[in-house]
Amino acid sequence: MNFVAEIKIMPLKELLDPQGKAVMGALSNLGIKSINDVRIGKHIQLNMEAASAEEARAIAEEAAQKLLANQVMEEFFISVS
Amino acid sequence: MNFVAEIKIMPLKELLDPQGKAVMGALSNLGIKSINDVRIGKHIQLNMEAASAEEARAIAEEAAQKLLANQVMEEFFISVS
Repeated sequence: MNFVAEIKIMPLKELLDPQGKAVMGALSNLGIKSINDVRIGKHIQLNMEAASAEEARAIAEEAAQKLLANQVMEEFFISVS
Repeated sequence: MNFVAEIKIMPLKELLDPQGKAVMGALSNLGIKSINDVRIGKHIQLNMEAASAEEARAIAEEAAQKLLANQVMEEFFISVS
């Protein structure tokens, strides 16, 4: 069966996100001033063949751990559909 | 009230995603061969003050249209919590 795994990879809360800070400044310059924090991460969508949703999640987790996420600086969240 | 808007920005389906293709090749080299498509986008989390969830969504949409997403090449999806 075909599954789609969505992996959200975000910088750890404990770390500064300079890219997010830059975007927050740019939004403020554009007149959007009600935003008090911006964090920027990656969103990766994997289409795959797997026997079950559990197997699809396991494959996505392996991919995230081995290649996609840097767990020193990032955390990841997986959802499978 | 404080709201968190999550904006998922992905390359349009009609367009090639060379970064995704490169990641797919790398995953295959690592032995993860059941994946048949990878697409890579951005995930942006905005913390903001707003009177209601509707207002928060409107602010996030304005931010996405004015700055965050390039609508020639990307589509975006917003969820507010």
